[in-house]
Amino acid sequence: MPSGSVNAADVAELADGCALLGSGGGGDTHALGLVLRSSLIERGPVRVIDASELSEHALVVNVGFVGAPIIAVEKLFAEREVLSALDAMSRRLGRKIDAVMAAEIGGGNGLTAFIAGSLLGVPVVDADGMGRAFPQSDQISYSIYGRSASPTMVATDQGDVVCVESDSNRRIEQLVRAVSAAAGHKCFAVDYVMEGKDVRNCAVLGTTTLARRIGAALRMARAQHESPVQVLEEALSSHPGLVARMLFEGKIIGCTHETRGGFSFGTVRATTVPAGSELSIDFQNEFLIARRDGEIIATTPDIISLMDADTLRNIGSEGVRYGQRIKVIAIRAPELLRTPAALAVVGPRAFGIGVDYRPIGSSS
Amino acid sequence: MPSGSVNAADVAELADGCALLGSGGGGDTHALGLVLRSSLIERGPVRVIDASELSEHALVVNVGFVGAPIIAVEKLFAEREVLSALDAMSRRLGRKIDAVMAAEIGGGNGLTAFIAGSLLGVPVVDADGMGRAFPQSDQISYSIYGRSASPTMVATDQGDVVCVESDSNRRIEQLVRAVSAAAGHKCFAVDYVMEGKDVRNCAVLGTTTLARRIGAALRMARAQHESPVQVLEEALSSHPGLVARMLFEGKIIGCTHETRGGFSFGTVRATTVPAGSELSIDFQNEFLIARRDGEIIATTPDIISLMDADTLRNIGSEGVRYGQRIKVIAIRAPELLRTPAALAVVGPRAFGIGVDYRPIGSSS
Repeated sequence: MPSGSVNAADVAELADGCALLGSGGGGDTHALGLVLRSSLIERGPVRVIDASELSEHALVVNVGFVGAPIIAVEKLFAEREVLSALDAMSRRLGRKIDAVMAAEIGGGNGLTAFIAGSLLGVPVVDADGMGRAFPQSDQISYSIYGRSASPTMVATDQGDVVCVESDSNRRIEQLVRAVSAAAGHKCFAVDYVMEGKDVRNCAVLGTTTLARRIGAALRMARAQHESPVQVLEEALSSHPGLVARMLFEGKIIGCTHETRGGFSFGTVRATTVPAGSELSIDFQNEFLIARRDGEIIATTPDIISLMDADTLRNIGSEGVRYGQRIKVIAIRAPELLRTPAALAVVGPRAFGIGVDYRPIGSSS
Repeated sequence: MPSGSVNAADVAELADGCALLGSGGGGDTHALGLVLRSSLIERGPVRVIDASELSEHALVVNVGFVGAPIIAVEKLFAEREVLSALDAMSRRLGRKIDAVMAAEIGGGNGLTAFIAGSLLGVPVVDADGMGRAFPQSDQISYSIYGRSASPTMVATDQGDVVCVESDSNRRIEQLVRAVSAAAGHKCFAVDYVMEGKDVRNCAVLGTTTLARRIGAALRMARAQHESPVQVLEEALSSHPGLVARMLFEGKIIGCTHETRGGFSFGTVRATTVPAGSELSIDFQNEFLIARRDGEIIATTPDIISLMDADTLRNIGSEGVRYGQRIKVIAIRAPELLRTPAALAVVGPRAFGIGVDYRPIGSSS
């Protein structure tokens, strides 16, 4: 296996890493993992390239599914949507697409970029726009740093193609979400068209490599029954500024859940075993803020992820159930998402939570 | 005033005729009449051309607003939407638009074509796709006779432009309606791109002239206190196959109203004065079926219109109120909408009403 590529045998660890980076959201990695594995077996490995390898004017597009958190994908449909949106974008721009990139590395959309790269026969850039997953498509470094999502090309599993153009990335998000709802709560979007220099300036770099390292670390922790945080810290050591913390170990004692405006909202509650200390985590698709006995211990944009205490399998916000034994891990968000400009878009207040961002590791 | 043009002084009669042809729907003609009048004063008359004047390959597009029945329009917004959608379509096709045409002559959208012609400086073709108004954009002669609505170009009052492409005209209708809802229940659509020969083959011809004749006839009936049906029959005499009937005269005694799936549904009830005979009319945006004492006297696609008994002003399905003195008039639908292929799309059963089409005049 060349280090600069992903083949079928790598899908499991890539999927595990993407799931952890999803902060409880970003869509299911299981179905998309199956689609990706099958495509890689049929078409061979997909090249992964560093942003530095892109020529100044190389044409790069971001890709991802937009819709309900748990995406049911069938292979044929995924292919049709992915190829028709990419083809329509290429025709619209009058240029060949040189590489694709995940809009969000977290959850299933971290894998979607590899499906697109495999189908189109182009490399995947080792970068994304969120370093995790967020509920809205405009909560992305490209939008934060002034890039336009226009034109955004959307395809449905029925072969429909919709092109959305606007000066406002927020309005594009709203219009694409309306199209997604009308298309059965799932569509494939190609957006944030960029050239090589833009990727280097405003993407979150190295995140597909990070996802694979995390996946490999989790596998090692499982095999050797080691602490996942210890292996994660080692995995993250080559990514300066990234910090991992074990937030909590215990048992789920409750979860509220409400669907509103196309998003899932709720609160997860857990207790230590034996009881003594309580954890609560609020979510909007993704886990946003964690409190231990009322005291804030992690907030968005830092990643908050739950895993099964025994299997170390990720548990998304949709998968929380009473009685689960869990470990809660936090990973500090990448630098690009922790600037004042970024916090206005992805910090707690952007989600209506009246507190300031407090980086994990700053008080523990 | 040259006979082949519309100027500011003609707007009132054109609007009156479009309102009557709306079968109770098609959107308000008042606000769009103001916008059109102002544009005609500023830019001069708009040429109206017969379909026979179009060259074989002249590029013609259909235009209309999609959204809530009563459209609130401000002039600046209307201009921006109309021009940006037409401009985007022209760029998409790589061709200049030679003429525009109303998607539906009924209601405000009969006037929209003239606003588009005025702003773009191109003629309006004396034809439309419905000969009246229908709730869905695919209930149109072009779709019935095999033409594609793809690509459809949509613009919002915020300057967003959305292009929808699909093999299915029904899916384009659904996606455009979703975009309209997300854009505040109003957007401007350019669709059913055609060449001169297509217009001659599958448009409902002569309908802007018909609307003006109806408007002029209503004005004469008002001035001379004549029966509107008698003057309408004279106005329609030059349109072979068109037949007008007075269905009922009386007083509104009730109206139910429910909004479901983006449409208005309900039933209007009226009685003769003095009481003796009762009328009921079911509607989905447009009036669809009229019964007198339980017996069906008119059904879609024939036009069923209500007017104030004194002023002969049109009363749309949204404007029905208890106590109004009304006249109910029916006009037989154009031939193109009465074929078996058309009735499958616009006949009573297409609206879930379990009866066959029964042309007015066939039993009275």
